[in-house]
Amino acid sequence: MGHKPAFDPGLTQKFDAPLRRAINKDGSFNVRRVGASWRAFHPWLHVVNMGWSGFVVLVVGFYLALNFGFAALYFSLGADAVIGSAAPTEAERLLNCFFFSGHTLTTVGYGTLAPHGVMANVAATIEALVGLLGFAIITGLLVARVSRPSARIQYSPNAIVAPYQDGTALMFRIANERSNNLMELEAQVMLMQVVGRKGGNLERKFDLLALERNTVLMFPLTWTLVHPIDENSALYGKNAEDLIAVQAEIMILVKGFDETFSQVVHTRYSYRADEIVWGAKFSPAFRVDATGGMVLELDKVGDHNLVGQ
Amino acid sequence: MGHKPAFDPGLTQKFDAPLRRAINKDGSFNVRRVGASWRAFHPWLHVVNMGWSGFVVLVVGFYLALNFGFAALYFSLGADAVIGSAAPTEAERLLNCFFFSGHTLTTVGYGTLAPHGVMANVAATIEALVGLLGFAIITGLLVARVSRPSARIQYSPNAIVAPYQDGTALMFRIANERSNNLMELEAQVMLMQVVGRKGGNLERKFDLLALERNTVLMFPLTWTLVHPIDENSALYGKNAEDLIAVQAEIMILVKGFDETFSQVVHTRYSYRADEIVWGAKFSPAFRVDATGGMVLELDKVGDHNLVGQ
Amino acid sequence: MGHKPAFDPGLTQKFDAPLRRAINKDGSFNVRRVGASWRAFHPWLHVVNMGWSGFVVLVVGFYLALNFGFAALYFSLGADAVIGSAAPTEAERLLNCFFFSGHTLTTVGYGTLAPHGVMANVAATIEALVGLLGFAIITGLLVARVSRPSARIQYSPNAIVAPYQDGTALMFRIANERSNNLMELEAQVMLMQVVGRKGGNLERKFDLLALERNTVLMFPLTWTLVHPIDENSALYGKNAEDLIAVQAEIMILVKGFDETFSQVVHTRYSYRADEIVWGAKFSPAFRVDATGGMVLELDKVGDHNLVGQ
Amino acid sequence: MGHKPAFDPGLTQKFDAPLRRAINKDGSFNVRRVGASWRAFHPWLHVVNMGWSGFVVLVVGFYLALNFGFAALYFSLGADAVIGSAAPTEAERLLNCFFFSGHTLTTVGYGTLAPHGVMANVAATIEALVGLLGFAIITGLLVARVSRPSARIQYSPNAIVAPYQDGTALMFRIANERSNNLMELEAQVMLMQVVGRKGGNLERKFDLLALERNTVLMFPLTWTLVHPIDENSALYGKNAEDLIAVQAEIMILVKGFDETFSQVVHTRYSYRADEIVWGAKFSPAFRVDATGGMVLELDKVGDHNLVGQ
Repeated sequence: MGHKPAFDPGLTQKFDAPLRRAINKDGSFNVRRVGASWRAFHPWLHVVNMGWSGFVVLVVGFYLALNFGFAALYFSLGADAVIGSAAPTEAERLLNCFFFSGHTLTTVGYGTLAPHGVMANVAATIEALVGLLGFAIITGLLVARVSRPSARIQYSPNAIVAPYQDGTALMFRIANERSNNLMELEAQVMLMQVVGRKGGNLERKFDLLALERNTVLMFPLTWTLVHPIDENSALYGKNAEDLIAVQAEIMILVKGFDETFSQVVHTRYSYRADEIVWGAKFSPAFRVDATGGMVLELDKVGDHNLVGQ
Repeated sequence: MGHKPAFDPGLTQKFDAPLRRAINKDGSFNVRRVGASWRAFHPWLHVVNMGWSGFVVLVVGFYLALNFGFAALYFSLGADAVIGSAAPTEAERLLNCFFFSGHTLTTVGYGTLAPHGVMANVAATIEALVGLLGFAIITGLLVARVSRPSARIQYSPNAIVAPYQDGTALMFRIANERSNNLMELEAQVMLMQVVGRKGGNLERKFDLLALERNTVLMFPLTWTLVHPIDENSALYGKNAEDLIAVQAEIMILVKGFDETFSQVVHTRYSYRADEIVWGAKFSPAFRVDATGGMVLELDKVGDHNLVGQ
Repeated sequence: MGHKPAFDPGLTQKFDAPLRRAINKDGSFNVRRVGASWRAFHPWLHVVNMGWSGFVVLVVGFYLALNFGFAALYFSLGADAVIGSAAPTEAERLLNCFFFSGHTLTTVGYGTLAPHGVMANVAATIEALVGLLGFAIITGLLVARVSRPSARIQYSPNAIVAPYQDGTALMFRIANERSNNLMELEAQVMLMQVVGRKGGNLERKFDLLALERNTVLMFPLTWTLVHPIDENSALYGKNAEDLIAVQAEIMILVKGFDETFSQVVHTRYSYRADEIVWGAKFSPAFRVDATGGMVLELDKVGDHNLVGQ
Repeated sequence: MGHKPAFDPGLTQKFDAPLRRAINKDGSFNVRRVGASWRAFHPWLHVVNMGWSGFVVLVVGFYLALNFGFAALYFSLGADAVIGSAAPTEAERLLNCFFFSGHTLTTVGYGTLAPHGVMANVAATIEALVGLLGFAIITGLLVARVSRPSARIQYSPNAIVAPYQDGTALMFRIANERSNNLMELEAQVMLMQVVGRKGGNLERKFDLLALERNTVLMFPLTWTLVHPIDENSALYGKNAEDLIAVQAEIMILVKGFDETFSQVVHTRYSYRADEIVWGAKFSPAFRVDATGGMVLELDKVGDHNLVGQ
C-alpha cells in the first residue's frame, strides 16, 4: 500500500472478482446489504423510499385491515350493536358492519348506520381515533414522499478529452433541468482504476482529479467542469486504450443548495472509459432570443464536435 | 482566454446577441429553459412555485373533478344507490348524487344522502379515502407555499461611488425589512462586463469585487457593503462612461441564516452601470428615540447626498 | 475611522443620543423598524412569531367570521335551504343556520341540520372545502409555533475576571438547561465601547475578544468560556471603573447543532460593565452521585467565590 | 494545568468520585440534570423524546379527558340538550352524552346523537374546534416522532491495535446499516484518561487522536478509521495494561449528511480500554456476488483475526 495513503472515497480498495460499475447511471451505488440487525430497520425511512406501487398497496392494505378488523368486532357484538345493520342474512349484516366501519374510520359518519350500546360506541370511538392518527401518519408519509428535495442535474452523456490552453483537459458539462435555483455548487471528481493484483485480490486505486474550478456561486445555465491533464493528473500520458485496460471509471459528486427546498442536494454520476470521447469539444447549448433573454437548450447539453488534434 | 482562468459565477461567458440584464430586480435570472425531459418535471416543486391564481384553479379543479367523477359513478349505480337522492328528473337526481359526492369527499357526511348497497358503499369508502389523502397533499402544498423561508432584504436603489479613506469605494447599503433575526450574513459581489468580441461572439468577463468586509455576525440595523477601488479592483481607473460602455452589471449575492425559519436564505440583486451614483455618500437611516432605543428607518436605506469630489 | 477597519458585528458605530443596552437579556436586539413596505410583511412569519393570546384571538376570530359569514348566506337562502332549521322566530332560524354552518365548517355533519337545494348544497360544499384548507393552515401554524427549535442555554448571571495562568482572564459559564444534545458549539464574544465623539456624534467601537477555545464538540455539562486578558485584548490594562466609563457591553453569540430538531440554533447574551465581577472564580456546578453518574446542577451555573487578588 | 490548554470536548476535566463510562453504548451521555428552571421545559421537545408507552398514555389520556369533560358539560345542560340521549337512568344518559362527545371530538358526527339548543350547539362547536386543533398537534408530534432523522451506524464491537505501515495503529470499523446514502462523513476521535489527582480531585485529560483520514465523501461499504500510533499520539508507548490503569476511554463522534432526510446526522460511540484488542486485524466484511455486485455483510463488521506481533 506504500506510505502515502491513497485517497479513498469510501469505496473499498480490494476485491476478488470482476465488478460492475461502482456508481449506476441513476446515481445509486452498486452495493447490497446483508446481515443487518432488525433494529436497524427504520419503518419511516423504508416507506418513504419504497416504490409507488408498494406504497399504494401498503396504504390500501392498512385501510382494509383496519376496516375489516373493526367490522368483525361490530359483527360479533350482535345485531343491535349497529343501528341500521339488520339484514336478512348474516353475510349482509357483516357487509353492513363493514360499511359502518368505513364510515367511522374516515369520520364521514353518515348516520344511516350508527353505533348502539356501550361496546359498539367504545369501539367506534377507538376506530375514529385510530383512523385520525393513521391518516395523520399516511399524510406525513405522502407529503414526505412527494416533497423530497432532489436535484435534477443533466450530465452530458459523454465526458470529452479536448485541447485546452497548452495541453488537454477532461471535460464534462452539466445543466440544471429545473427552473428552481441551485446555488453554491461544489463538485468533486475521482478516477477509479484497477491497478494490480495483491495476494490474489485485484486492487482498486482512487485519485482525485483536480478541477480548474470546483465551485460556482450560481447555476442558471450550463457549467463545464474542466480537469486539466497536467503532470499532476492521474490521467497524464494515458490514452483511451490505457483507460479501458485499467477499467477506469470517472466518479463525480456534485452538491448544491436548492432555494425552493432550502436544502442541500447531492447528485452522483460516473463515466466509464468507453464513455469518454477523445478529441472533441462541446458546442453551445444556449442561445439568445429576440427579446435579449437567454435560452438554455437542455437537449444540447451533451452536444460536441470532434476536433482535429 | 489566457492562462489565468477568469472567475465564472455560473453564467456563461460567450454570447452572440444583445442581452437584457442578467439578474432581474426581483433576484431571478434572465434565463428560460427548453428541451427538458418530462422526467425532470417535479410536480411538487412546480405547484409550490406556481402563482396563487393557478394554485387556486388547480385545487378547485381537482376538487370538482373528483366530485363530479364520483357523482357520475353514483348516478350510474341507479336510483337506490344513494338514499335520499330520488328526484322527479334525472338531472335533479344527478345533482343529488353530486351533493352526496361532496358530503363524502369532505367527510362531512350529513346523512340526508347516504350510500346504499355494496357498490355505492365501496365507492363512498374509496371517495372518502381519496378525499382524505387528496386534502393531505393540498394541505402540505398550502403549508409549503405559505411557510417558505425567504429573506426580505432591502437594497439601496443605487450603488454609490464615494470618497473612502485615501481613495474611493463602491458602496451599497442593505437592511432587513423584517424583524426576524438574520445571522451570519455573507456577501459576494461581482462585476460583469462585455470585454470584446471573439470569432463573431461578444464575450462577458466576470470579476470578483473584494469587499472590505464580506460577513457580519448580526444584522439588526443596516449594513453598508464597501468595495475599495484600489489597484486590484476591476473598477480601478474607470469612470461612469466607461462602465456604461462595457454594459457593466454589479451582481450581488447575500446569504444568511434566518432564525425564525432556522434555514439559510439567499438573496440576489444587481446594479447596472446607470444605477451607480458617482460622488455621493449615504445619509443615516436610523435614529435613537426618546427611550434610548434604536429606530431603523427602512424608507431611508437608499438616501444619499452628493458630495464634492 | 483610520486605515484599519474596526470589526463591526452588524450594529452601527455612530449614534447621537444615549442608548439602552444593545442586546436585551432575552437575546433580542434593542431595535425597532419603521417605514417598511407592506410587501415586506410575511403573514406566516408574523403569525408564527406573535404571542399566544394574539394567536388564539386570531384563530377564534377566523373561525367565527367564517362561521357567521356562511350562516348569513344560508339564512338568506330562505327557510327550506337548511333542513331542520325551521324555527318560530327569525332569530332562532338564524341561530340554526349558524349551528349548521358550524357542523359543516368542522365537517362534523350530524345531519340534524342538512343543506337542501342547489344553492345551499354548493355553499355547504364550499364551506367544507374552506374549513378543511383553513384548518390545514391553522394546523401548520400551530405545529410551526410549538415545534420551533430553540436552545435553552443558561448563562452565568455574571461574567467574572479571575486570575488565569500567568495573568487574568474574563470568564463566563454556560450550560444546556435541556437534556437534548447540543453538538459543535461555537462562540463569539465582542466588546462594545463608546470611544469618543466625532462631529457631535458619539461613536461605538467593537472588538472581538479572542477565546482560549471557541468551539466544543459536545456540551453535556458546563462550558466555561475564557478570554485571556493579554496585550492583544481590548480589555488589557482596564479596570472596573474604566469599563463603566466607556459603557462597555460584552456581547456573546453562541450557536450549536440541536440533535432533536436536527437544526442549528443560536443564542445571544450580553454583560454590561456592572455585571462583571472582578476577582472571583466559578465553583463547581456538578457532582458525582452514588452510582458514578454525573449530575449537572443548573442552579449553580452562576456560583462563584471572590478570591484574593 | 500548564500553559498549553488541554483539548476539552465539553466534558469536565475534574471530578471527585469514581465514574461510569462517559458515553454509553447507545451514544447518550452519562449525565443527569437537576435544578433546571421550569421555563427551560419545552413541551414539544419533551413529548418528541419520550418513550412510546408514555406517548400513547398521553394521547389516550388527553383524548379521554376532553371527551369526559365535554360529556359532563352536555350532561349538565339537561335531558334535551342532546337529541337521542334520553335514557331510563341518569348513568345511561351520561353514557350517551359521552358517546355524543366522542362523535363530536372526532368529527365523525353520525347524527343519532345531535346537539339541541344554543348552549349544546356552542359547546359542540367548541369541542369540534378543540378536536381538530388537538389532533393537529398530535399529528405533528406523531410525524415528528416517526420521521426523526437518525443514522444507524454499526461500530465494530472492538477497536484493535494492529501493525500498520512501519508501526502500529488503533483502528475500528464502521458501516451504514441502512441503505439510505450517507455522504461526507467526518469523524473525530478522542482519548480520555485519568491522569492524576489535584487537591483531592481526580483529573481527566482529553487528547485528540489524529486520524490518517478523518473524512470520506461516500459511505457505501465499510470505513476503517485508522489512528497511527506515532510519537505525536497520546497512545505512543502505551500497552493494554497502561490504558486500563488510566481508565482510558476512546470517544468517537461521527457525523454525515443523510440524503433521505436531507439533514446532518451525528453518532457517538466509545471504547473502554478493555474493549481494545491488541494485535489483530479486521477481516473483509463484503464479497462480490455472481453478478459482479458488491455485497456488504453487516454481521461481519467486527470480525478480526489475531496476528503475530
